[in-house]
Amino acid sequence: MISVPEAFDIIKQQVNKLPCHTVALPQAFNCVLAKPVFALYDTPPFNNSAMDGYAFRFADLQYSPNFSVIGSVSAGSTFNGTLMKNEAVRIFTGACIPVDADTVVMQEKTIQNTHTVTVTDEEITLGSNVRLKGSQNKVNEMLVRAGNSINEMIIGYLASAGIDKVTVYQKPSVCIITTGTELIMPGLPLQPGKIFESNSWMLNAALNKMFMQTQLYACDDSMQHLSNLLAAKATETDVIIITGGVSVGDYDFVAPALKQLGAQIFFHKVKQKPGKPLLFAKLNNAFIFGLPGNPASALSCFYNYVKPALHLMQGMVWPMYQTALLQNTFQKKEGLTHFVKSVCNNGGVTILNGQESYLLNSFAAANCMAVLPETATHFEPGMTLEVLPL
Amino acid sequence: MISVPEAFDIIKQQVNKLPCHTVALPQAFNCVLAKPVFALYDTPPFNNSAMDGYAFRFADLQYSPNFSVIGSVSAGSTFNGTLMKNEAVRIFTGACIPVDADTVVMQEKTIQNTHTVTVTDEEITLGSNVRLKGSQNKVNEMLVRAGNSINEMIIGYLASAGIDKVTVYQKPSVCIITTGTELIMPGLPLQPGKIFESNSWMLNAALNKMFMQTQLYACDDSMQHLSNLLAAKATETDVIIITGGVSVGDYDFVAPALKQLGAQIFFHKVKQKPGKPLLFAKLNNAFIFGLPGNPASALSCFYNYVKPALHLMQGMVWPMYQTALLQNTFQKKEGLTHFVKSVCNNGGVTILNGQESYLLNSFAAANCMAVLPETATHFEPGMTLEVLPL
Repeated sequence: MISVPEAFDIIKQQVNKLPCHTVALPQAFNCVLAKPVFALYDTPPFNNSAMDGYAFRFADLQYSPNFSVIGSVSAGSTFNGTLMKNEAVRIFTGACIPVDADTVVMQEKTIQNTHTVTVTDEEITLGSNVRLKGSQNKVNEMLVRAGNSINEMIIGYLASAGIDKVTVYQKPSVCIITTGTELIMPGLPLQPGKIFESNSWMLNAALNKMFMQTQLYACDDSMQHLSNLLAAKATETDVIIITGGVSVGDYDFVAPALKQLGAQIFFHKVKQKPGKPLLFAKLNNAFIFGLPGNPASALSCFYNYVKPALHLMQGMVWPMYQTALLQNTFQKKEGLTHFVKSVCNNGGVTILNGQESYLLNSFAAANCMAVLPETATHFEPGMTLEVLPL
Repeated sequence: MISVPEAFDIIKQQVNKLPCHTVALPQAFNCVLAKPVFALYDTPPFNNSAMDGYAFRFADLQYSPNFSVIGSVSAGSTFNGTLMKNEAVRIFTGACIPVDADTVVMQEKTIQNTHTVTVTDEEITLGSNVRLKGSQNKVNEMLVRAGNSINEMIIGYLASAGIDKVTVYQKPSVCIITTGTELIMPGLPLQPGKIFESNSWMLNAALNKMFMQTQLYACDDSMQHLSNLLAAKATETDVIIITGGVSVGDYDFVAPALKQLGAQIFFHKVKQKPGKPLLFAKLNNAFIFGLPGNPASALSCFYNYVKPALHLMQGMVWPMYQTALLQNTFQKKEGLTHFVKSVCNNGGVTILNGQESYLLNSFAAANCMAVLPETATHFEPGMTLEVLPL
């Protein structure tokens, strides 16, 4: 049985970024840029007005504050005439500054007559209210580096520079297989010996939170059914998450099915609680995570192993644990790393009651998992713990 | 012109939670519970085994550690026989404990023969390895309070209790209308006087991050087109976000169109930078946010006004600003609240360069907005600022 850090290392060694592909910018939300993006144009592409007002040549103010208004230019159009001495053009926000003009006075700081305008702005300087061509970015300038995760701000920035496609790492396709003859779907009448299946909806929601889609499959405790399903899914998905059947009992068919199919099993069993039976394998090109069937164990393993692996595959980094000061007392036996459902707040962390692997009520109240190292046994207020925000 | 706190107050007064509806549990992800959820059953619904092992009556150990194995029970089935003195049943994880048994010994702590088993676990006590009926929750117990936002952990918890439907506040339906004759879509060739439209993709991504869907419309600077579109959309969406045309110039048709349609305009113009022209109105049952066309202004108003309003409508709370210590120096004029693109880290906040309302490059590097109050002018390292994480 390997330790938690050994298990992490094995996953980091095996899992690589998926290939990149080029997608429409709106579809790249939450994906990681595989190539830097360079500007196709200067942005703004032309000098333009920051205000509704009048565009003129600043030097003309030395002659008179009075200007003849010889034309008008609104956003989206251009003024193609020539400005003579003390001539101005009516201009609106975003409109292209006429070639001969260099300054805009906002309309609130003018006196307007039928065909003339008087500039009354005493603070105006050369270039006032003009947004210069290329002042956001110059053509060929790097706009966003590779490795950045694309958020709404980057989408806006790239769109404003005219970019409509980007090259990003693919997001892994994920399939969830729940196993267990004892499971029935929520909403159906409860039958003797049966319990409600919760792993599929729970893990599906956890993946939706990562902006990933999943396929859901249920399988009974049959070696043949499980083998068939694994063989089929391993050819068409990047990651298979199986819950249940991963221990070493008479009804635990995950490891035997994988062995029969010739999968490479990297580890099976980790010195941890919950989630000791955790299995990590590869079949064809699909990585397989065998999680315990107990919902709290399955979710703990998802957060600590599967989610970081999914991050690596899409070009993100393995999440770092943060640190927080323990607020309460906790004891455990030596020999296993414990991942405990906890509440973090203001730099403190409180370990919740109800850590048993089949209990989800403490998870529903938690906002982080705290890590209790393998060899430690007593935990007192004030100790620094590693925590994983959920 | 009203102040920022006045604008916030008006929105809080006008905007209410949307009606609630009952949805399938998986569809409730990121929704807010409108009614508490009560348990339909005890969970677990029966005493069950935490281990693969043997179930027996603990009192029988006083006679002998040797038991006759008279049956077997796996997860999902039940054992309907009767245990006589020093009789045991083979049992697997999750299986129902036979009525006469009270304790399970894990198989690793037994010696197994053909029809008998010897218990060798010296630490075993009454009830060992038995998960008691109702130990997660009892029938009729409240599982989750109203007001909780449903995350993957709550989905798992409720599913494990057999819940397949919940009553949640509806998420608002949102329509984004971009206006501006000067706009062309990214990817098309740039034409004189035109700029690339970025607000629709940017705001759509911001809404996707909130797990909300949108409809996108583009409208030129035409009073008639805008009126028609507003009239149609106001009957079928909860929130309309318009970008551009919201100032008071000759080509700003948002306010005139709303007035013509008989909309109630709650405010138009706020003492802030960016986003001074911000407009908030209601037409039929749709709330309308008129945001400036400049992408950075539009996004700033989205984060500070629209997103909090969308939170209120779906039963969440108005987001609280956090505080952080300023790391650099900044100056501004008195009279407007400034929302400045900034980077927060380890309790410190640094105001970025490039705060002009048409620049998105600083937004692409920001992770928060800092709030610079209306009357303040000088900001020095060590001052405490309010920040809104993005």
